[in-house]
Amino acid sequence: MPQHGVYSEVGTLRKVLVCAPGLAHRRLTPTNADDLLFDDVMWVESAQRDHADFVNKLRERGVEVVELHDLLAQTLAVPGAREWLLTRKITPNEVGWGLVDDTLDFLSSLGDRPLAEFLIGGLATSDVPFRSNYVSLARESTGAREYLMPPLPNTLYTRDTTCWLYGGLTLNPLYWPARHDETLLMKAIYQFHPDFTGATVWWGDPELPWGQATFEGGDVMPVGNGVVLVGMSERTSRQAITQVASALFAAGAAEQVVVAGMPKLRAAMHLDTVFTFADLDVVTLYPGIVDGIHSFTLRPGSSSGLDVTDEGSRPFVDVVASSLGLSSLRVIETGGDVYASERQQWDSGNNAVALEPGVVFTYDRNTKTNTLLRKAGMEVITIVGAELGRGRGGGHCMTCPLIRDAVKF
Amino acid sequence: MPQHGVYSEVGTLRKVLVCAPGLAHRRLTPTNADDLLFDDVMWVESAQRDHADFVNKLRERGVEVVELHDLLAQTLAVPGAREWLLTRKITPNEVGWGLVDDTLDFLSSLGDRPLAEFLIGGLATSDVPFRSNYVSLARESTGAREYLMPPLPNTLYTRDTTCWLYGGLTLNPLYWPARHDETLLMKAIYQFHPDFTGATVWWGDPELPWGQATFEGGDVMPVGNGVVLVGMSERTSRQAITQVASALFAAGAAEQVVVAGMPKLRAAMHLDTVFTFADLDVVTLYPGIVDGIHSFTLRPGSSSGLDVTDEGSRPFVDVVASSLGLSSLRVIETGGDVYASERQQWDSGNNAVALEPGVVFTYDRNTKTNTLLRKAGMEVITIVGAELGRGRGGGHCMTCPLIRDAVKF
Amino acid sequence: MPQHGVYSEVGTLRKVLVCAPGLAHRRLTPTNADDLLFDDVMWVESAQRDHADFVNKLRERGVEVVELHDLLAQTLAVPGAREWLLTRKITPNEVGWGLVDDTLDFLSSLGDRPLAEFLIGGLATSDVPFRSNYVSLARESTGAREYLMPPLPNTLYTRDTTCWLYGGLTLNPLYWPARHDETLLMKAIYQFHPDFTGATVWWGDPELPWGQATFEGGDVMPVGNGVVLVGMSERTSRQAITQVASALFAAGAAEQVVVAGMPKLRAAMHLDTVFTFADLDVVTLYPGIVDGIHSFTLRPGSSSGLDVTDEGSRPFVDVVASSLGLSSLRVIETGGDVYASERQQWDSGNNAVALEPGVVFTYDRNTKTNTLLRKAGMEVITIVGAELGRGRGGGHCMTCPLIRDAVKF
Amino acid sequence: MPQHGVYSEVGTLRKVLVCAPGLAHRRLTPTNADDLLFDDVMWVESAQRDHADFVNKLRERGVEVVELHDLLAQTLAVPGAREWLLTRKITPNEVGWGLVDDTLDFLSSLGDRPLAEFLIGGLATSDVPFRSNYVSLARESTGAREYLMPPLPNTLYTRDTTCWLYGGLTLNPLYWPARHDETLLMKAIYQFHPDFTGATVWWGDPELPWGQATFEGGDVMPVGNGVVLVGMSERTSRQAITQVASALFAAGAAEQVVVAGMPKLRAAMHLDTVFTFADLDVVTLYPGIVDGIHSFTLRPGSSSGLDVTDEGSRPFVDVVASSLGLSSLRVIETGGDVYASERQQWDSGNNAVALEPGVVFTYDRNTKTNTLLRKAGMEVITIVGAELGRGRGGGHCMTCPLIRDAVKF
Repeated sequence: MPQHGVYSEVGTLRKVLVCAPGLAHRRLTPTNADDLLFDDVMWVESAQRDHADFVNKLRERGVEVVELHDLLAQTLAVPGAREWLLTRKITPNEVGWGLVDDTLDFLSSLGDRPLAEFLIGGLATSDVPFRSNYVSLARESTGAREYLMPPLPNTLYTRDTTCWLYGGLTLNPLYWPARHDETLLMKAIYQFHPDFTGATVWWGDPELPWGQATFEGGDVMPVGNGVVLVGMSERTSRQAITQVASALFAAGAAEQVVVAGMPKLRAAMHLDTVFTFADLDVVTLYPGIVDGIHSFTLRPGSSSGLDVTDEGSRPFVDVVASSLGLSSLRVIETGGDVYASERQQWDSGNNAVALEPGVVFTYDRNTKTNTLLRKAGMEVITIVGAELGRGRGGGHCMTCPLIRDAVKF
Repeated sequence: MPQHGVYSEVGTLRKVLVCAPGLAHRRLTPTNADDLLFDDVMWVESAQRDHADFVNKLRERGVEVVELHDLLAQTLAVPGAREWLLTRKITPNEVGWGLVDDTLDFLSSLGDRPLAEFLIGGLATSDVPFRSNYVSLARESTGAREYLMPPLPNTLYTRDTTCWLYGGLTLNPLYWPARHDETLLMKAIYQFHPDFTGATVWWGDPELPWGQATFEGGDVMPVGNGVVLVGMSERTSRQAITQVASALFAAGAAEQVVVAGMPKLRAAMHLDTVFTFADLDVVTLYPGIVDGIHSFTLRPGSSSGLDVTDEGSRPFVDVVASSLGLSSLRVIETGGDVYASERQQWDSGNNAVALEPGVVFTYDRNTKTNTLLRKAGMEVITIVGAELGRGRGGGHCMTCPLIRDAVKF
Repeated sequence: MPQHGVYSEVGTLRKVLVCAPGLAHRRLTPTNADDLLFDDVMWVESAQRDHADFVNKLRERGVEVVELHDLLAQTLAVPGAREWLLTRKITPNEVGWGLVDDTLDFLSSLGDRPLAEFLIGGLATSDVPFRSNYVSLARESTGAREYLMPPLPNTLYTRDTTCWLYGGLTLNPLYWPARHDETLLMKAIYQFHPDFTGATVWWGDPELPWGQATFEGGDVMPVGNGVVLVGMSERTSRQAITQVASALFAAGAAEQVVVAGMPKLRAAMHLDTVFTFADLDVVTLYPGIVDGIHSFTLRPGSSSGLDVTDEGSRPFVDVVASSLGLSSLRVIETGGDVYASERQQWDSGNNAVALEPGVVFTYDRNTKTNTLLRKAGMEVITIVGAELGRGRGGGHCMTCPLIRDAVKF
Repeated sequence: MPQHGVYSEVGTLRKVLVCAPGLAHRRLTPTNADDLLFDDVMWVESAQRDHADFVNKLRERGVEVVELHDLLAQTLAVPGAREWLLTRKITPNEVGWGLVDDTLDFLSSLGDRPLAEFLIGGLATSDVPFRSNYVSLARESTGAREYLMPPLPNTLYTRDTTCWLYGGLTLNPLYWPARHDETLLMKAIYQFHPDFTGATVWWGDPELPWGQATFEGGDVMPVGNGVVLVGMSERTSRQAITQVASALFAAGAAEQVVVAGMPKLRAAMHLDTVFTFADLDVVTLYPGIVDGIHSFTLRPGSSSGLDVTDEGSRPFVDVVASSLGLSSLRVIETGGDVYASERQQWDSGNNAVALEPGVVFTYDRNTKTNTLLRKAGMEVITIVGAELGRGRGGGHCMTCPLIRDAVKF
């Protein structure tokens, strides 16, 4: 078994975690999409086809791709795992008094794969065979679609839930309550699945409360040279960033954390929606947001503290270049006129994920940015984004690298 | 020391908890009001005067009124209480790594009363005397008004946070994260303040996670005759209601819980915003919502379970009357034409709180509903609502009865 | 030249007006999409391909398809037309004092086709070659993208702007100011284009003010048998409906107008988003909305008035069947479970347009509803909806029949 | 009869138009308040008392105050006026076919004062005595509260509808359709009321269409010295500003128009919500917005054009000072810390209206800004703002000066 670890943003990608669209996305409707953090409903069969095509292209290029439903089903087959997870999911606080036993009975009757699908896709009152006045109370409480386990459609964006940072990982407390259970599923996998035994966890545990300390992988980039970039945003707070930095420094896993203070008006955006790497010294970015980033550099401080440097008005791109020991970065901005540029940022135009230095996946629809990347010498492989892009995430969001090589700057 | 306990909605009110407007409301701005669950900013000095007038009127009628800032300051003076509370509030997850020690030092230098004011009113980075790059990181993260402790303006509505139900109380897990810390303050008071030692807690603990099980006092009414009414709404879930019912039944504290399933379209509303008692058999209600309530009755079931009766299309008012052993209730609807009626519900026109049977407090501005109450023989004492009403709560919301007599039906 | 006229919803379609996606849709961004009544941006090249495919399928089946940019360019070539239109568009009230002459000079230098594209696609300050402080004032006033002529992306939905009702047409006053100029373009075409000379206009003139009297073709269906169905909604008001009914009755063009009073909560919806015909006696509908329709029937009254019959609680489908002399209609509901059904309505699942009795176009993504239509014996031809559907309109919305045969009931 | 005319912002105010709260505000509910541009409902009786107090204070200081309901009733008594107005209001486009005659009959039966109240307060279907199926169609179309004439609650802000600029006035095309009819009422008054015969209208006519050319008095200040300040905002467009400037220059009524390009993020704000005069050289302003103003100066140009000067990065306050021939202005900012300052701007803290140089009316609740004004030597007379302020307008918004003296700089 190769050792998991992610040592850069653009080194050769060897193993990656994705999650195929499925039952959770069939639950999305115009009424509930907002609550589930999606802008629009999607045509699930079509999204599945496009996602499968993305996976195939990854595999053709030699990447080992593991899929979340598969991993979870394999995990459930491990003795103790099923009980561990159901004990934590099927509680009076979640399914409600009077429904715990019936729900457990029903779920226990399922095979590993169907159970994994309900764990990710959610369990509606209409999915269970038993009927009682407890169920009618449940239905009345929020309509026919009341859930005994909530659907987790944002698992599609495996990037956010866990982050491999060099030789260890974080189990992230996500900002929105609607996503909390994603991290619990990942903990079960890391705890029980044989491929992951012994993985080092730097920080995070979904069974503990984290308060204001929230952390999402879309904001986090282990760029190499001992540096981690982290967007400080509505979703990724300084309370979490400073804890992660301390943990990394204490373990000697990193030497610098560059914090990208995102402009206030776009609080909801992850760093990777406006800035990603395409090659060792090439980034694609949306200047409308990146120009407003206020940077800080965290380094190990005296007496187990952190040393915080306010980078003031220094451009973020310059701070990043310095941290990597480069004199500058080559910048490819979102392409086209003011209209096209804003549209392409929205359509995840800057959300590239690298296969190796100079080879990236992006959505097909961002033709102008893709052309600029190609003109700069990058190889661009496209993913069909018509459906997958409706949750406002691209290739970078949909991938959680498990093994990626280091690079030399 | 008289024994705390609340045995009805309209029996003589002997002791009540309120919270005066203050620092937390000075933090409200048009930008943050929504996040803090207020519709509009208020003129704090004016709200304070109106609230003081309300308190005076309660006291003139013989009610013992305790105020939250006072109670909390008294609590902080008890050995161990200050440490207990600060240990739980000033953590890396909340104030952020690197600010814990400085913040603790600053707060420790304060007297009990100023500390109580910051605990309720919030602690901004601009309130602390120390400066460091940790503080600048904090300010950058969400602007100059970043909090080290969040303001808790909804403490004004003491009704929600804890509920005395007959001889014991609940420490409620509130729906919005912005309100969670309110319950922690109340736990400190019940744990350390000498007036409350030995109080029985039926259910709830702010130090445990409650998931979907949220419960707010605005939905809860211990109407007497062994009955508790509970609105099932966005904020008060069946997961919590069934747990509370079980706890009450197990302790023999109640015999029936009547669940008012609120119409879906008005998920955010508490039961007491559309339905309150004015006399033993007199209620004031807003038919536009109450007509859509779907009722269930919970009773002790076999083998420690609950017995759930779906009341189907029976009007809520009839279900309540039956539960009290009454043939019917006299109903006073929100007054005026379609415009006035909708406006008065909005202005807390149905949110009456009884001093004793037939004597209620309401806002002055709901003149039409007040007139109808008076014509029905009620004594109506008015509170100035121009400022206090801007958080969409009235006299019922602003009072947490601690001692109220039983009534005979 | 065949005589224009539309005598049914399902008789053989012989000639139809469509509008290809183009410059107006390139102007859509996440920032302005709402103002332009679009839910999301679209990939214009892809939408153009899908639209061209739709047009090809129509032509293959023998339908004459005319396209709005083409028609408008041909119109501009007619002496007088260009002046007529520019005089009405390029005024101080629209482009602003000081920019009228320069703008007219620029537009006059353009050929008919480029001018047609700007008339539909909008003219931004960045599109004009001249520069002056007037232009800088214009840019400052609402940012770099200030328009001298507004983009009209909703022209894609040719259904709304004009309606052929039997042998004449209406030039509709549209609800949203952002769409008003669409009708002016259509007036120019009907006034100057040789194919349309002599067309009878029942009602409407974009050069007159209409106040509350707004009317949109998505709500209007000349179903045959002297009947017109009209949805009464936020966008199509009783003030307009009664005027159109009077005009039709006065001309002897119709005998009944069946008004579908749309449920209040969905004020923005057109009738054809929840109800269309697939065959003489077959409709596809979304029961979640159609069940809430309150119907009225308008007939010619005494002394030039209207006779209004309140149909009370009679189901809309029954009222329609009776008006056509049928005992009943066969109903095909939006397919799938509660999730799928709501999603498919949203994705224009009920927005079918008939080519002839029993042959309809729908979006590919509504697979469940399409299957039900096919099981009921309909021929279903699909349109790719991934991009075209983002403005929340389907095949019915995108087509304005110019010639359609009558049917026999 | 003294000659109407307004020659400054701070010269002695001699005659002013106001409009008391009334029926239109009784129509406001939580459901419709947004559509009617109000943030919240108000307690009308209390607002009336506070408004009457404001009027009394104006009169005590020698100002002649005329009230809109009074003026309109007096106007309706003038032969021809009633017919002129009803012909324009009661049309098929507005009340709907079939209701015109009955509505006219009902309104004709009313006295001048009741008719004036319905013209301002709106006419609901529930207000009329006749019943027919036309009425039931009307009720169904948008619920029980359908209007035959719309309520005009924004008449409270008489500032916006008409502007006296030196010796003549503008009849403003207002931005929101919900306010258009306000200007028609004012036209009737200026056309028929004997006190206003012969008034010079510089620009504007509610019977003509104005397209993008909208203009609201809250953005307009005839500051004297031949200068008019105009905020360029969502509501007051360059299309209108340039026309008004041209008309003023052509008539020799002004020599400069200083355009305050409001920051984009606050499109909805009038200039007078962030900047007003308190004395000849004293202004009160909210720096959070005013610092972002981009100024232009318009002067008469060659050949009947305008000369447009882009003032670039020059602060707005400096541009204004120069235009008045002053070396600088004394600036009093919104008072208090960051919280209080934002709250007071919101509560119309900068919306002062001067009685004479150095004497202003403001809302009582903005205590910090009022204190700063007083410390600067201003006399501040307060208005109770608890209810009146809920439409987000203060003393400046609620007054339309008809006669105000010039000042010497």
